Parts: sequence; structure tokens; C-alpha cells
Amino acid sequence: MTRQHLIEQIKQKKTFLCVGLDTDIKKIPAFLLEYEDPIYEFNKRIIDATADLCVAYKPNIAFYESRGVSGWTSLQKTCRYLPKNCLSIADAKRGDIGNTADMYAHAFFSGGEGGLDFDAITVAPYMGEDSIVPFLKYADKWAIVLALTSNKGSSDFQFLIDSHSGYRFFEQVIQKVNTWGTNEQIMYVVGATQGKAFKDIRRYAPTHFLLVPGVGAQGGSLEDVCTYGMNKDCGLLVNATRSIIYAGNDQDFADRAREEAKVLQKAMEVELQKAGIIP
Amino acid sequence: MTRQHLIEQIKQKKTFLCVGLDTDIKKIPAFLLEYEDPIYEFNKRIIDATADLCVAYKPNIAFYESRGVSGWTSLQKTCRYLPKNCLSIADAKRGDIGNTADMYAHAFFSGGEGGLDFDAITVAPYMGEDSIVPFLKYADKWAIVLALTSNKGSSDFQFLIDSHSGYRFFEQVIQKVNTWGTNEQIMYVVGATQGKAFKDIRRYAPTHFLLVPGVGAQGGSLEDVCTYGMNKDCGLLVNATRSIIYAGNDQDFADRAREEAKVLQKAMEVELQKAGIIP
Repeated sequence: MTRQHLIEQIKQKKTFLCVGLDTDIKKIPAFLLEYEDPIYEFNKRIIDATADLCVAYKPNIAFYESRGVSGWTSLQKTCRYLPKNCLSIADAKRGDIGNTADMYAHAFFSGGEGGLDFDAITVAPYMGEDSIVPFLKYADKWAIVLALTSNKGSSDFQFLIDSHSGYRFFEQVIQKVNTWGTNEQIMYVVGATQGKAFKDIRRYAPTHFLLVPGVGAQGGSLEDVCTYGMNKDCGLLVNATRSIIYAGNDQDFADRAREEAKVLQKAMEVELQKAGIIP
Repeated sequence: MTRQHLIEQIKQKKTFLCVGLDTDIKKIPAFLLEYEDPIYEFNKRIIDATADLCVAYKPNIAFYESRGVSGWTSLQKTCRYLPKNCLSIADAKRGDIGNTADMYAHAFFSGGEGGLDFDAITVAPYMGEDSIVPFLKYADKWAIVLALTSNKGSSDFQFLIDSHSGYRFFEQVIQKVNTWGTNEQIMYVVGATQGKAFKDIRRYAPTHFLLVPGVGAQGGSLEDVCTYGMNKDCGLLVNATRSIIYAGNDQDFADRAREEAKVLQKAMEVELQKAGIIP
């Protein structure tokens, strides 16, 4: 999916919601366990219930890998089911030397039989340029690089100040990664819990899209994110997972998920209007 | 596998070689393509040919994921085939928030039907404590944390100097990660191409095992690694991949792999003797 296509979808659907598919067999409604592939069945119903309210889906690869071959099968089926007008993001946080990054890019980006054909993948910057660049070789695909994450451990290393430049580590990451590709290939992960840091991020990445986890269960504020992070094209994909997909735990779980997604979509519509992005 | 068990294996087998299983369908001998599972067939023969010459095997997960469900099946079968007296390392470089790290730990460490039951996994430190600690909850399993990697991109971020402490980033990582677990749970990745940096690493991690990629195809020197990195328990697992598994490309590929592994084992035996670790 191109940047232009994504922006069009945001304006048309009046939302910049990304729905996380961290599908856990222990948390889905019990009645689904009777299906041949409960994980896929759950995802399918969540997708059907939310596809007009969001512009992206983000399966968290760990949840599928933890189920081995069966999990990978559910992931493949889910990928094939995802609507083409939504950005599909593999939340994988991969990062390895060049020849291995090539393999990961193939694993997540290639299409054809058995291919996952994701539009985007999250990647970790620790290993530097050759760990990121292989993901930039695919047309209309995205590398979403970890910058400032939403979790407690983000304070362990991401705020270290480089003695040479005076920049914090996450700022260094953005400035350097910016030299490897364009805002049509690269996004950054910035946690919703980071509040005013969005202002600093926008200094170095004014036009990039930011993937923003941490609204909902992790406690980040949508309004703060928009105040400090939104740009003229929106430039935000705000993810919610648990608050949507586990809103209900019974036969009506998909309806409950839709209700929660609708609340977020409505709030996002207001923000898009406030910013003059939609009438 | 415990630290003590690993040290015993090193002394008994007179080697600290780790064989990387970056098994690429495009690089294995053509005659194997007639088998039902060529990847597994290749791995099995490499393992049979080298098991007495090494103390660890390290499947690179990207190479299996790039083949989807079929790759994951080959990985499971390979894991089950690995000898119990060798440390099995999932080279996965995972790193995510706590609840997701839990899932990755389950994916790679859990046993039982369909479980991979690896002894160790490589992990990335960027996201901090809650991305590492879930891997330390399993008895006799290891988290192998990226410190100073062997690739060109290692210079992009790993050498940044923290203005507060004056330490380089990889030194910060080691010092902080040391506070999260013991040398019976944690190892560090240090690239063989980093030469004298091993001396600095040993200042902060004198007793830890180091997993050392980059000897062979990437150009690191075994002698330098031992001079600057070996400790009284050896404390090194030196990995070679391409130089061993792709030494031959015909019916005799396993014999050729054995010859290459034998050369490295012999050189390691000399180093262990020089250090007085074996008679």
C-alpha cells in the first residue's frame, strides 16, 4: 500500500485506527474452541466487525509462533483474509544482519502460495543499516522502525544521551534511519505513553507516519498523541488491541469489539476535523 | 542445559564450536530436493557429521520462517533431532514488550508436542528490561543478549557514548542486563570481527559466556577472539555457519562439513590447551 493510498483511506473512513490481532487461545470466547481453527475464526469475525472503522491490522507474530505450525497456519489464513484497503502490519520487531534480514523480508513480504504478503513489518534498529535496508527493497512495502516504545523498559536505553551530538538515542535512531529511505518506505514506532516526546519526534520526522501503540490497556491518551503528533496528512496510525478484541468474551464478542472500535473511530474523526484534514 | 553441563561438554569434546544452521533451500545440494523435507534432511546429515566436534547448534529462525508452515515444520523436526549434549540456540533476535516476550519465550522454550524446546534464544536489548526478563523465567534456559554485533551496521548505534556515564552503548547494555539475571541465565553476543573490544567486554562480563559469530565467512580471527575473550571456563561459543554447512555442494557435503568443523575443533583444542583449560 502506498503512502497516498493510506492517506486516502484515512480521509475516506475518517479513522486512523489500527487493530492489533494479538490473538491468544486462552482469551478468546470458549465457544470458538469447537472450530477447526479457533484463532482464525476469531480473527475473521473481528475483521468483519471492524474493517470499516480502521485503516490497518497488526497481527502480533509472537502470538502465532507460540502455537507452532498451527499458529503459522492461522497467520497465513488471517493474512489472506485481511481486506486490501487496510494496511497489514506484521508486528515482528525483527533485526538481524543483512543476509538474514533478506530472509525475514521474504518471509513477511513475499506473496504467492504460502506467502504472507504483509504491507509492513516492525523492525528493531540495534544492529544498524544492514538490518533495515533489506526491508526497503520491496515496492509499496514499509519498514516500521522502533524509535520510542510504549513499555516501561523504554527508559532503559532509548533516552541515553549521545555525548557527541547531544541527541537522545531515539532521536539518533530517527535521524540516521531517515538517511536510509524515504517517508514512503519508513514509519516509526512511538508509544502513546510518551506524551510530549511526540513534539521532539516531529522535529526529526515531520512528515513520516508514526505507528502508535499504547492507547487503551497501556494508558496512553489519544488526545495528547494528536495534539503533539498529528501532521497535515494525519501521519498517525494509532493501535488498540486488548480494549477492542477482548471487549467481550461471549457470542457477542465481535459486536462488542465493533462498539469499542466505533468509540475510537468517532474520537479520531473529531481529531481529523479539528486538524482540518477532513471537513 | 546448565552452565556446568556446558563447561563439561567443552572440556570433554575439546571444542567450543557452535554450528549455525542457516539452511537455505537455494544453497543445499540439488540431490536433497528429491526428499520430502530437504531442509530437515540437510540438517540431519550436518548434525550427524559434526555432533562430536561442536557443543552447540544455532538454527537461524529467519531461514525457516521464509518457508512458512513448511519451514516451521522443518525447524520442529530439526529441534527434535538435535543431540541433548549440545546447546540448542534459536537465533531469533526477538525483543518486545512483556506480554509479547512471554509468548516468544513460550514459542521457543516450551517442550511437549509441537514445542521447540530450545535451550537458548538470542534477544535484542532495545526495548529494555521487560523485553528480556520473560526469557529468564525458564530453568536451565538462556537469553543471549545482543551486545556488540559482527555486522557493518554495528557501528551505527552500538558505539554511541552515553554522556552521563561515559560508557559506550554496548557497555551500558551489558552493565544493565547484568542486573536482571546471572551468568547462568544470560550470555552476550559479541562479533568476532570486533577484535580488541573483547577486552572491554570482559571488563563488564568477566564470567559470562559469549556467543561469537563472525569467524569464517565474515572474516573474524579465532586467535584474536581467544586472546582477548577467553576466561578460565572458556566462556566462548564460537559460531561458524557458511564455511561449514556449505563447504561442499554434492553427495559428499556432510563429509566436507565435517572436515571444516574438524579444522576449527583442532584450532579450538589448541586454544583450550594454551589457556590450561584442558591438559
